Amino acid sequence: MAGIDLNADLGEGFGVWSLGDDDAMLGIVTSANVACGFHAGDPAGLLRVCRLAAERGVRIGAQVSYRDLAGFGRRFIDVAVDDLVADVVYQIGALQAIAHAAGSAVTYVKPHGALYNTIVTNHEQAAAVAAAVQLADASLPVLGMAGSAFFDEAAHVGLHTVAEAFADRAYRPDGQLVSRREPNAVLHDPAEIARRVVRLATSGQVAAVDGTQIAVSVESVCVHGDSPGAVQIASAVRDQLEAAGIEIRAFC
Amino acid sequence: MAGIDLNADLGEGFGVWSLGDDDAMLGIVTSANVACGFHAGDPAGLLRVCRLAAERGVRIGAQVSYRDLAGFGRRFIDVAVDDLVADVVYQIGALQAIAHAAGSAVTYVKPHGALYNTIVTNHEQAAAVAAAVQLADASLPVLGMAGSAFFDEAAHVGLHTVAEAFADRAYRPDGQLVSRREPNAVLHDPAEIARRVVRLATSGQVAAVDGTQIAVSVESVCVHGDSPGAVQIASAVRDQLEAAGIEIRAFC
Amino acid sequence: MAGIDLNADLGEGFGVWSLGDDDAMLGIVTSANVACGFHAGDPAGLLRVCRLAAERGVRIGAQVSYRDLAGFGRRFIDVAVDDLVADVVYQIGALQAIAHAAGSAVTYVKPHGALYNTIVTNHEQAAAVAAAVQLADASLPVLGMAGSAFFDEAAHVGLHTVAEAFADRAYRPDGQLVSRREPNAVLHDPAEIARRVVRLATSGQVAAVDGTQIAVSVESVCVHGDSPGAVQIASAVRDQLEAAGIEIRAFC
Amino acid sequence: MAGIDLNADLGEGFGVWSLGDDDAMLGIVTSANVACGFHAGDPAGLLRVCRLAAERGVRIGAQVSYRDLAGFGRRFIDVAVDDLVADVVYQIGALQAIAHAAGSAVTYVKPHGALYNTIVTNHEQAAAVAAAVQLADASLPVLGMAGSAFFDEAAHVGLHTVAEAFADRAYRPDGQLVSRREPNAVLHDPAEIARRVVRLATSGQVAAVDGTQIAVSVESVCVHGDSPGAVQIASAVRDQLEAAGIEIRAFC
Repeated sequence: MAGIDLNADLGEGFGVWSLGDDDAMLGIVTSANVACGFHAGDPAGLLRVCRLAAERGVRIGAQVSYRDLAGFGRRFIDVAVDDLVADVVYQIGALQAIAHAAGSAVTYVKPHGALYNTIVTNHEQAAAVAAAVQLADASLPVLGMAGSAFFDEAAHVGLHTVAEAFADRAYRPDGQLVSRREPNAVLHDPAEIARRVVRLATSGQVAAVDGTQIAVSVESVCVHGDSPGAVQIASAVRDQLEAAGIEIRAFC
Repeated sequence: MAGIDLNADLGEGFGVWSLGDDDAMLGIVTSANVACGFHAGDPAGLLRVCRLAAERGVRIGAQVSYRDLAGFGRRFIDVAVDDLVADVVYQIGALQAIAHAAGSAVTYVKPHGALYNTIVTNHEQAAAVAAAVQLADASLPVLGMAGSAFFDEAAHVGLHTVAEAFADRAYRPDGQLVSRREPNAVLHDPAEIARRVVRLATSGQVAAVDGTQIAVSVESVCVHGDSPGAVQIASAVRDQLEAAGIEIRAFC
Repeated sequence: MAGIDLNADLGEGFGVWSLGDDDAMLGIVTSANVACGFHAGDPAGLLRVCRLAAERGVRIGAQVSYRDLAGFGRRFIDVAVDDLVADVVYQIGALQAIAHAAGSAVTYVKPHGALYNTIVTNHEQAAAVAAAVQLADASLPVLGMAGSAFFDEAAHVGLHTVAEAFADRAYRPDGQLVSRREPNAVLHDPAEIARRVVRLATSGQVAAVDGTQIAVSVESVCVHGDSPGAVQIASAVRDQLEAAGIEIRAFC
Repeated sequence: MAGIDLNADLGEGFGVWSLGDDDAMLGIVTSANVACGFHAGDPAGLLRVCRLAAERGVRIGAQVSYRDLAGFGRRFIDVAVDDLVADVVYQIGALQAIAHAAGSAVTYVKPHGALYNTIVTNHEQAAAVAAAVQLADASLPVLGMAGSAFFDEAAHVGLHTVAEAFADRAYRPDGQLVSRREPNAVLHDPAEIARRVVRLATSGQVAAVDGTQIAVSVESVCVHGDSPGAVQIASAVRDQLEAAGIEIRAFC
């Protein structure tokens, strides 16, 4: 039976502030990219979301970030390699203990926001993140973009890489994402998004913005939890996948 | 052969700022209470000190604190129990990964500053710290004050407790420390401090401020690394212990 | 014509996180207690809310706090007097420049959360806050509880004090608030809350929990902006005050 | 009588951590670039250094930075313009109140570290900083590099610009600084540095790395306070300037 993993960013509140509907999303996804305190996530909130994930049988990943609460990790920081390595090790460990306290475990690592985007092309920072995962726990796979500098560097140090697609993002004919600065970079119609994900899961293909069909081989699809209508979109994706007979299951 | 552990607070810089002489202290102590980022300790600095400790064969402990960089963890914070539990789990995990990346491991937990002082008597926060250690890794012993609320609560959840004395602090006849607000609370003469520690390690006794000899049964002695003359005092303590034929060794 | 000021806490988001409906509240209140960055409030968010307040003709006050983003300023911190003085001066100045950039000005100071509660009785911290306001701008009035240590200390250094009542809080017969730890400490029915505020504004009296009428002489009433139903309650208060012919106007 | 201003970065500790010898430097310089809390500077420490500066008659400038305590403001951050404007306004205001509480005032603005370097060429961030100064207090001059994007943008919004040279940095023949990544970028010999500054103050010329004399017209010279030997170098500069009959005086 065909299957696909659904992942979403969770635990992204801080103290009194919340973001998105973690509870609803944990009923939809199979992998939770849980914040680690550097862009979001106070420890008590992280422990709550890890306990919920453990109850629901949702896998926990460490969503590591630049140290930037004020910018939610969405701003590139020209951090030195040694600092970035240690920052990522620190975050993974912090979430490992939180997940352990919740009766679960961190089973993968996914970079967040500007760090995610930067290491698609920046080999120096990509190597730092890969080195950090390798130092913290070399058995942890990393979730990211196929063809990225990050995947090159991760493979180079022996990490397992897991490719993901984005449910609500438009693709260029070369397989890269349309920049958010361009119109139509983000899709909003739940039905259309769900159809695309089903096609991707069944045929490994997605329609690029120019209408050509491109091959996107992924083991996971990222659905967002924090935008307006996010839960509705994620639900539509899950429902249509199930209607098409595709199993929603965590990647191996 | 008689033996005693020497412990000191290390890794207490942050970014560009340093505090104390970690390198010198790692040549003296057998247990390093390494900061965990909440009162001090940026990840790159923590990784450096953990690597040094690993090289020197010095044991690493997690020096957990209130979240208070501006106050260096020296101010009581009336933090809710659930928050404190998660804060401590988070810190232990962060340092566990850093220590692991350095080829070592966290082998005990010692609370820092105002948290240390608070849980001598505050059972609610003491229970929170004990619960956190138990959740993060129930095999970790805790280092602290004999007779404290913290030791009661730690024992209650099955943690191993290790009592420490303070090399440079005056004791009251009842075995408690003289408050820092009183004159003569802190000793400054290296020779006198060293003599006291030797007597404590050989006879289990220390002279209280009124001259009476009191029993202080400890497995470890805390020497400070950040005050003026700290390294000189710690060296004198180590030298006199060795001269007295007492082995400086990590507690079991 | 009788009149009363309505004040509410605003600008209490941080970065990507928001709290309450500032826009709606600025259509209701006459005084905005704007966060200053220590418990909430990133500078860009503060500038936005100050510009909105300036547009709507709503007066801006500096809502100063302990330094505690993770705890939203709701946790007592045993901060040293010198530190608290400087922390409060810093916050007032920061908001003064933000308000100035928005074409307005800070015209009063109101402590937030745990600091507000602490200085009802703690004279040392109360004196620190009063000294800070006096140092930053001695012409700024302070908004707070009549009979508090803070008002004593503020008057002592020559500050003008402005007493406020809480629209949704139950009072004890002695004029103090019922502790939030007790049931019925907080009122939830918009109509009842509005009636109480009208009575308070017209007669200077409010019914205590035992039914006795007590005198509560205030120039301002605090309405909350961040709880569920907050805007509805604040609207009801404003509507009933206007229906009763009471002018909603900033205190002098 | 010829004259020159000497400026240095001060107040760059944080809480328990100190950096450099503020007390010694305040006996040497005429302008103190005081940190504003974003890269360094807790409010109590800032108040202390501002009081010392006021006592010594040293002028206070606001040393504004990216929000980056962990990186000491030395890392480029791709911060959005609106955020940067508000961040800089906030910092200026905070220090204005601190300086006012110390009986002095902020009389200029100098960006710090990575922000300083970035806005030499990045017009978008340069315009943001200029706009922030203009919004906070349009009468404040800005201290920086002649020929920088920052000076273009500052002049564009009507700010007064004051050019500075660096006492201990090597210059390229085109008048730019030799990059710190190159050897010999930084001079270390106090006598040589002092001679260069005297020549600069008397003739407006400095020897570039290739030996050519280049024109560097400045009103201020930056001396560092935090490197090893910093105070000795700064003293040598001051002594040699005075021996050459050049008045050390704040820029107008």
